[in-house]
Amino acid sequence: MEELFEPRAIAVIGATPKEGKVGNTLLKNLSKFKGKIYAVNPKYREVLGVECYPSVKDLPEEVDLAVIAVPAEVVPKVLEECGEKGVKAAVVISAGFREVGNYKLEMELVEICKKYGIKMVGPNCLGIINTSNGLNATFSGVEPLRGRIALISQSGALIVAIMDWALANNIGFSKIVSLGNKALLNECDFIEYLSNDDETEVIALYVEGIEEGRRFMEIAEKCRKPIVAIKSGKTSAGAKAVSSHTGSLAGSYEACRTAFRQSGVVEAESVEELFDFSTVLSYIKGFRGGVAIVTNSGGPAVMASDAVEKYNLNLASFEHETVEMLRSIAPYGNVYNPVDVLGDADAERFCKALDIVAKDRNVGLILAILTPTATIDGVKVAEKIVGINKKVVGCFMGGKSFEEAVRILREKGIANFNDPVRAVKAIASVQFYSRRTKRKEFVRFDVDLKKVRELLKRGLYFEVVREYGIPVPPYGIARSAEEALEIADKIGYPVAMKVVSPKIIHKTDVGCVKLNVTRNEVVKIFYEILKRAEEFGDVEGVMIQKMMPTGKEVIVGMKRDPSFGPLVMFGMGGIYVDVFRDVSFRIAPISREDAEEMVREVKAYRILQGVRGEKPSDVDAIIDVILRVSQMVMDLEEILELDINPIFVYEKGCCAVDVKVIV
Amino acid sequence: MEELFEPRAIAVIGATPKEGKVGNTLLKNLSKFKGKIYAVNPKYREVLGVECYPSVKDLPEEVDLAVIAVPAEVVPKVLEECGEKGVKAAVVISAGFREVGNYKLEMELVEICKKYGIKMVGPNCLGIINTSNGLNATFSGVEPLRGRIALISQSGALIVAIMDWALANNIGFSKIVSLGNKALLNECDFIEYLSNDDETEVIALYVEGIEEGRRFMEIAEKCRKPIVAIKSGKTSAGAKAVSSHTGSLAGSYEACRTAFRQSGVVEAESVEELFDFSTVLSYIKGFRGGVAIVTNSGGPAVMASDAVEKYNLNLASFEHETVEMLRSIAPYGNVYNPVDVLGDADAERFCKALDIVAKDRNVGLILAILTPTATIDGVKVAEKIVGINKKVVGCFMGGKSFEEAVRILREKGIANFNDPVRAVKAIASVQFYSRRTKRKEFVRFDVDLKKVRELLKRGLYFEVVREYGIPVPPYGIARSAEEALEIADKIGYPVAMKVVSPKIIHKTDVGCVKLNVTRNEVVKIFYEILKRAEEFGDVEGVMIQKMMPTGKEVIVGMKRDPSFGPLVMFGMGGIYVDVFRDVSFRIAPISREDAEEMVREVKAYRILQGVRGEKPSDVDAIIDVILRVSQMVMDLEEILELDINPIFVYEKGCCAVDVKVIV
Repeated sequence: MEELFEPRAIAVIGATPKEGKVGNTLLKNLSKFKGKIYAVNPKYREVLGVECYPSVKDLPEEVDLAVIAVPAEVVPKVLEECGEKGVKAAVVISAGFREVGNYKLEMELVEICKKYGIKMVGPNCLGIINTSNGLNATFSGVEPLRGRIALISQSGALIVAIMDWALANNIGFSKIVSLGNKALLNECDFIEYLSNDDETEVIALYVEGIEEGRRFMEIAEKCRKPIVAIKSGKTSAGAKAVSSHTGSLAGSYEACRTAFRQSGVVEAESVEELFDFSTVLSYIKGFRGGVAIVTNSGGPAVMASDAVEKYNLNLASFEHETVEMLRSIAPYGNVYNPVDVLGDADAERFCKALDIVAKDRNVGLILAILTPTATIDGVKVAEKIVGINKKVVGCFMGGKSFEEAVRILREKGIANFNDPVRAVKAIASVQFYSRRTKRKEFVRFDVDLKKVRELLKRGLYFEVVREYGIPVPPYGIARSAEEALEIADKIGYPVAMKVVSPKIIHKTDVGCVKLNVTRNEVVKIFYEILKRAEEFGDVEGVMIQKMMPTGKEVIVGMKRDPSFGPLVMFGMGGIYVDVFRDVSFRIAPISREDAEEMVREVKAYRILQGVRGEKPSDVDAIIDVILRVSQMVMDLEEILELDINPIFVYEKGCCAVDVKVIV
Repeated sequence: MEELFEPRAIAVIGATPKEGKVGNTLLKNLSKFKGKIYAVNPKYREVLGVECYPSVKDLPEEVDLAVIAVPAEVVPKVLEECGEKGVKAAVVISAGFREVGNYKLEMELVEICKKYGIKMVGPNCLGIINTSNGLNATFSGVEPLRGRIALISQSGALIVAIMDWALANNIGFSKIVSLGNKALLNECDFIEYLSNDDETEVIALYVEGIEEGRRFMEIAEKCRKPIVAIKSGKTSAGAKAVSSHTGSLAGSYEACRTAFRQSGVVEAESVEELFDFSTVLSYIKGFRGGVAIVTNSGGPAVMASDAVEKYNLNLASFEHETVEMLRSIAPYGNVYNPVDVLGDADAERFCKALDIVAKDRNVGLILAILTPTATIDGVKVAEKIVGINKKVVGCFMGGKSFEEAVRILREKGIANFNDPVRAVKAIASVQFYSRRTKRKEFVRFDVDLKKVRELLKRGLYFEVVREYGIPVPPYGIARSAEEALEIADKIGYPVAMKVVSPKIIHKTDVGCVKLNVTRNEVVKIFYEILKRAEEFGDVEGVMIQKMMPTGKEVIVGMKRDPSFGPLVMFGMGGIYVDVFRDVSFRIAPISREDAEEMVREVKAYRILQGVRGEKPSDVDAIIDVILRVSQMVMDLEEILELDINPIFVYEKGCCAVDVKVIV
């Protein structure tokens, strides 16, 4: 990727002296680039003072990067020439490909890139920027400031809007990438690159779809920088907009959100959050201990305290000494957390409070909330904050009064927010990031893969589940009425009888399940079930299953996401799933820690712990089932969807009573 | 209140020439006041060019308003003199009252005000502002712009911060009130006044506690302007901060939030939301039809669509003609909602799209999302928007590029947001406001009040519930074992037996409840229960109740909030209440519409509708119980807490099986 962001020489293909044209703006924006620039256009010998050549092949030296802004149908030819010339990287600005249904033309570009090993951004993109070497290979009208945030976006328009806004708010960028149609390079490639980019402290990402889901997770997990991401096209309304927009297939939002969480990506809900979170994370990656609030104004501190609770942060409990020292400087104020040094405080008193709180070992981060008063000097407080030996987030509320103070904070990387709630949300994003789960161990259970594949083919899903070590009731499969009686006699009455056929998924709906069958009904029901199943075909037989005592009902299921792979679900059965959607997801493979979290995450977990004097259910048994399902759906890619439902959970052990599989 | 905001003459008591003192800043801030100002201070004959008198009693004419900034202990004397002089209103800036534990001194002020009929703001407040006549009776260093938002805040510091920020963001105010300790006047009084204030279009409110809850609801409901409110001190952490801050008792947040909702107050979660919502509501009070999104950029439109779904708004479905006309101007764009005229659109194309969408009868409001491009002229689009015959919210994203355009929008009252999600949330606040329930009818049921009071006194709660027409199982109260048998024989076996005593609330816990009692156990259990109940005293007898068939379990309860009165709760019994906190609240009296909403609002409502092939439960019967409980808790103020739990609901009818009452 070095050739993209650190090229020695660049060719602008489609450069033109015509004002307002993309090929003109590109060349202008590149004027600050610290390297050689060539223009390519058969019509000119020189464009804006830059040497111009008829073709990239005519250039007097090798170039690393070609920026291409020619009509779509010409791009393949130009790219081919780039390949022949040995160009390593290309940014294809030109539109008119997949986004207008022209898939074939886009595939041509990919073929050419693969042939010559060209790294291509786009097509249909705004371009890329590297602020450290003046590389602005975009046609944007705004020149971004240098900073620590890398921005990757699937929407070029959003980049322009953000750059414009960021300039007004003094926020800078290290790199900016407009992904465009992502024909070759996508967010994964850039995250991988930026993970090792010294200029970048945090990666802000806007995506509408993630195509290489599993690669994304792997790269995100390994990434050495925090990633903050907006996934748009979440809801059905949104998803519709996506498909009619860039033609990007909106992956299931649940899968994406789970992937974010599992790989430590901080999710943002809006552009504002994207930058609130990125700004804080560009300086603070984590903190140990609680949050201390120090303020000269009670109202905003109360709002912040509310938000601390809402966003699952902890207010630090102060050490005794801290309280005593605070009392000595603010006897009428609040000396517990949140610390209120009162409205008549001057900078000296506020700074003393900061010093005292900073020394408390229970405090991991200080939120300094300041409102303008006649007595407070914001600049002095800001100067104190930038030198303090503790992580600090600022909430200097106001406009002109604190302009200079906020400038001082920003300069030293202290984020400032005008709203205490926004500040707390941003702090919560740091906590999420610092608590992300690290590289985990995956257990493997012994399974005869050849055997289970065979069973799967025959529609013997119950057998598959059993082979994976998931407890099932005693059962047998009868091919004849005689055999049915024999099995039932062995198991004991009453029994459940169900058809076995890969063709029949909803067995109950077609009358192929009978529960509580007694001895003298077995034969009659055997024939009944066979008769009803006849029309579907592929009947393997009838399963005779022991009727199990009812336990707490849980469900473990899976749906294979086209991008992220097997999305495993856990929930309490029935109404909790249907009505409350009280379920948790993880993408397989699932570690033990993940499985434990999955179970604890659902609200109905308390039911498993035992409510109203009940004994707790065997949670370990459920975790074991989740881990085994995880392995099963990793092993058997044929399984598209899976429902093990219900699973009865007892005080000791559990039992999977029914299994549905879609292959 | 006229004397407060429109005084003819003002006395500043405690005026001083000493720079930096409150009494100095006050006088300076009042310099633009269009009326007569007097200074009062025995030390001076003149302060900052204003005539100064030793006492308010020495003033040459009557004054309407006194602004008082003298030491706390002197305030009563000064206020007394004001009363004698005939001053109608006072703003007491001085601190040192309830907030530092000095309740007695504060009560003195209230007594004096009552004696003379003085309207007092404060004490311990920042003051008040009326931008229409230059009345800035605060010691803030910022002079607010004139505008349509009235701001009422319990935190003076927050007002200063907000004014400072608003100035930088070009947001103006009609009136500003710092409530201080609310010794006499509180938010209710000001809302009542501002409801009829022509300068005010929306009321922004920050409160930590609402003391006159029922009055607040009544006034808020009648208020002719939208009210947007932050209630801080929501959570337990927050509540702690409140009580250690202004000593305001944090009312139960649930009660307050319910009151907001029930009386049409829009709740904001942060200062940012307070102003986002207020800004939009100051121009748009409602809209009929769906939201149309028009954009030149797909990405932000997708985010907006996601938010539209999340915040329960509807995207308008376009009329056929609209779609056709849009296609004719943007054949490659998206002509369904959200409309994307694409990144190469100029202002003309964008404005045409606005015109077309504005004519669609299904569209109630347009969200115009614009990102900076080379081709778009934001100013032209803004000029179009301000003239269009449809409600519009702007989302011109960017900084400098749209500065002038945003100024044009603001000038004509079109709110603009930099973030599509923030814009949509603000639109949702308009929808909430416009759909608030209006003045409702309350049903009354015939009840013998004297009789129920008597029953209540004797702890016969079951009888009370029955008297209110709530269905209960057949039962009788036995005073002897013989009578117990007699009653049980009449009811039929098995029966439930429960002690009746106003002293025993948790009957089961002390072994005074037996279920499924058969005939030959009745006598034994009668004595057992009596024996166990002995130590508690006041035993009325033993209730013999028919064992009812189990239905869907629901709970109707009530907790009397000290400020808002009876907070009635509905929920599905057991786990749904305990684990999921899936309950709804209303403050009594409850209208039929409210009761219907209460039932529909809980997530478990679907269980009542019938899941998995079950017949629906009798929702009307539940609504009837809620209405009867509402009347009961309004009639009987002695009841502090009430649980009717469980109530079995059947396909037809329902039955209250157990009742707990705390008097």
